Amino acid sequence: MSKPVDSAVSVVRTYIQDQRAAFLGDLTEWLRIPSVSAQPEHAADVSRSAGWLAAKLAETGFPVTEVWETAGAPAVFAEWPSDTPEAPTVLVYGHHDVQPAAVADGWHSDPFEPQTRDGRLYARGAADDKGQVFFHTLGVRAHLAATGRTTPAVHLKLLIEGEEESGSPNFRTLVEERAERLAADAVIVSDTGMWSETTPTVCTGMRGLAECEIELRGPDQDIHSGSFGGAVPNPATAVAGLVAALHDEDGRVAVPGFYDGVVPLTDEERELFAELPFDEARWLRTAKSYATAGESGHTVLERIWARPTAEVNGIGGGYQGEGTKTIIPASAFVKLSFRLVEGQDPDQVAKAVTEWVAARVPEGIRHRLDFGPATRPCLTPLDHPALRSVVRAMGTAFEQPVRFTREGGSGPAADLRDVLGAPVLFLGISVPSDGWHAPNEKVELDLLMKGVETTAYLWGDLAEHWTDTH
Amino acid sequence: MSKPVDSAVSVVRTYIQDQRAAFLGDLTEWLRIPSVSAQPEHAADVSRSAGWLAAKLAETGFPVTEVWETAGAPAVFAEWPSDTPEAPTVLVYGHHDVQPAAVADGWHSDPFEPQTRDGRLYARGAADDKGQVFFHTLGVRAHLAATGRTTPAVHLKLLIEGEEESGSPNFRTLVEERAERLAADAVIVSDTGMWSETTPTVCTGMRGLAECEIELRGPDQDIHSGSFGGAVPNPATAVAGLVAALHDEDGRVAVPGFYDGVVPLTDEERELFAELPFDEARWLRTAKSYATAGESGHTVLERIWARPTAEVNGIGGGYQGEGTKTIIPASAFVKLSFRLVEGQDPDQVAKAVTEWVAARVPEGIRHRLDFGPATRPCLTPLDHPALRSVVRAMGTAFEQPVRFTREGGSGPAADLRDVLGAPVLFLGISVPSDGWHAPNEKVELDLLMKGVETTAYLWGDLAEHWTDTH
Repeated sequence: MSKPVDSAVSVVRTYIQDQRAAFLGDLTEWLRIPSVSAQPEHAADVSRSAGWLAAKLAETGFPVTEVWETAGAPAVFAEWPSDTPEAPTVLVYGHHDVQPAAVADGWHSDPFEPQTRDGRLYARGAADDKGQVFFHTLGVRAHLAATGRTTPAVHLKLLIEGEEESGSPNFRTLVEERAERLAADAVIVSDTGMWSETTPTVCTGMRGLAECEIELRGPDQDIHSGSFGGAVPNPATAVAGLVAALHDEDGRVAVPGFYDGVVPLTDEERELFAELPFDEARWLRTAKSYATAGESGHTVLERIWARPTAEVNGIGGGYQGEGTKTIIPASAFVKLSFRLVEGQDPDQVAKAVTEWVAARVPEGIRHRLDFGPATRPCLTPLDHPALRSVVRAMGTAFEQPVRFTREGGSGPAADLRDVLGAPVLFLGISVPSDGWHAPNEKVELDLLMKGVETTAYLWGDLAEHWTDTH
Repeated sequence: MSKPVDSAVSVVRTYIQDQRAAFLGDLTEWLRIPSVSAQPEHAADVSRSAGWLAAKLAETGFPVTEVWETAGAPAVFAEWPSDTPEAPTVLVYGHHDVQPAAVADGWHSDPFEPQTRDGRLYARGAADDKGQVFFHTLGVRAHLAATGRTTPAVHLKLLIEGEEESGSPNFRTLVEERAERLAADAVIVSDTGMWSETTPTVCTGMRGLAECEIELRGPDQDIHSGSFGGAVPNPATAVAGLVAALHDEDGRVAVPGFYDGVVPLTDEERELFAELPFDEARWLRTAKSYATAGESGHTVLERIWARPTAEVNGIGGGYQGEGTKTIIPASAFVKLSFRLVEGQDPDQVAKAVTEWVAARVPEGIRHRLDFGPATRPCLTPLDHPALRSVVRAMGTAFEQPVRFTREGGSGPAADLRDVLGAPVLFLGISVPSDGWHAPNEKVELDLLMKGVETTAYLWGDLAEHWTDTH
């Protein structure tokens, strides 16, 4: 039976309602710890955050809680085995570090002194990602309360890293070294969002990311544009030539081989995207932009969720100050990022871009091109039974049909998939207005409690339907 | 008779040799004054430099010497009327301000404590332009000594401005306001150079200059390249598109109307350029560059001296720091300079560029384009008798044939031509290795004395042959 009986729903909701105040009190305490991984002066706070979470997970009932040190900030691991030995193992992923925040950036209240206003909890990390990690604590308790179990219906593991906002530099190594402890049949990533407050959705994929910096060098030093202008190659012109050639007239990336292996959207996926109540004017306001653009033949949602891109993140060269300076600059650079989709290999993309650049740099211009570590794309198979469990659990909590989205951004989920060999699913209740990485980040308290409720139903459903996958 | 008799040459040379030590002592004193017009903390030094020069010109014998205040730094005016009323009037132009300089930039000695090493005088301003202004003082004395005159053979005027290194912001106004005092039959600009130590040349033109900054704005603030990448226009990509489209495949500026009115080189001018001992490898070393480039169908010298250009002086947008930042930048800019040649109207060029940019900015990108004040191109008519006087005087001094060059750079000479209605000629003895605007600027003392000698012959020759023009 897929839907919890009404009585189970009632027990879950009553239990959550009873615990809500204590749950939010605990979350508030955690949010007070400024666990900013990007700022060395907060290293002790990130450690404190890890210790706080490990203690809280032990208090929740997890018999195993460990702080795992890395070359950078520590992660928290917790495990709560099921007393049903044949139950599937689920690994929840999230992160306890947060983006930098300061009142001076435009916060209406101290980002590390949580405030509740109009049903919203304002604090750095409220949505990204402490709130979404934390709903798993009360969720598993509600699951036990509703089922009368003393252990979860699945073998439950949590891995909450401490460096996601710094690009997870040590995450892959950690996962590889601890692969045996982390072994799971499915990974649930709680670090994404939903379409909107009124349209619950499950994310089914994130794009990958490959980043490079290209430096072009012309003269050995800035030279006079009067004395030499018009007769030697200008590296700023050359870098512009590269960038301008990066896309063709149809908005497609013009690097040969870039699209090799790209898994195209199926008609079903395009229809699922099209079902969403997309309002272009509203989306443009969110994007703070004045027109849509991009690859022809694709909708906005297809472009941001399911198509690979090339974007300039920074460009520079020559005189940057006020007024004018009549020079031909010695050098110019561009920082590019490529979002990748299922089927693309970051190494192949890097090779294709490297060759393309080398072939296009004008005579007399020397160049350097560096690709950093890449993030692979990650896609949940739409026909995976575990995805149906997430959809059912969320549908019960929200009492609405659940639709599908993807995320245009990138995260370390693919590392978990690749190392552990387990499908990755996404369960998040954040909404676009939550302001990730922005001033006045918040979480909608009603949605947060729906997250709790979803996980209260999820473990039972997953255990019940897991055999569907085998 | 065009060539001074041998006895006159002998008198001039003896006179100059006798005065050389005192002349260099005076110049050294002047070079000690750090008259850096671009640095407000040196404003008093620029004024002191003007006063010093005015006093020295009075000592030289100029019956009229005045310091002319402007809205910025002061200029020096001096006048020495000929006792031959029908003699032509010649106005010498130069500047007494200098570029900034500091030992930390790589000077081997204090830039404002002149040092003589290996026949070279090292100091900021030694060549640009105090040395080349100063040779006119001893030159006119030698002219009097050799001719036995008590006044010059021409009505001699000097206008030595104090803001050339700051773009001469008040020069045009000054010339317009003082046009009556400055009235002249010919202008001699001593602020240029020669081909080399062994190839004396006369410059016959400078390019004009129009500069603009274009700012393109996309999103209202930097936005996440994962969430929005691929679906909104990126202003850094747009600015690259503009820059890349600025030139066609033949290296010509692709802005419609840009070449309107351009006076093409005559076959004679191309032949004169081709006579110069141009060594591409050597020129590339001077340009500190690794290849030539530019408009097809033209030699390097034609490109830098006689063809208009569009160069990127600066480009920027988005993340400029170390590492990566996954944003679509809110804005991007480019600073462009256009060198102009005879026949081009800076206002028309600005209009053409403005229209071209407006037509090319992608939808959703807002833009701003500002052109600053322009400098017009300036060309000496090759058939002007005064040019022949300069060539003869220089040929006598250097005992070599004199060839013709132009300068790729730009200066305020065109203002003098336009306001005073007089042809502009260039007389300079600086060589490319003198390091204008660079550390260790110097002047070759032997060439400096040839400058003195040239002017010692020039005024007599001009007076004698002036009627050829009428």
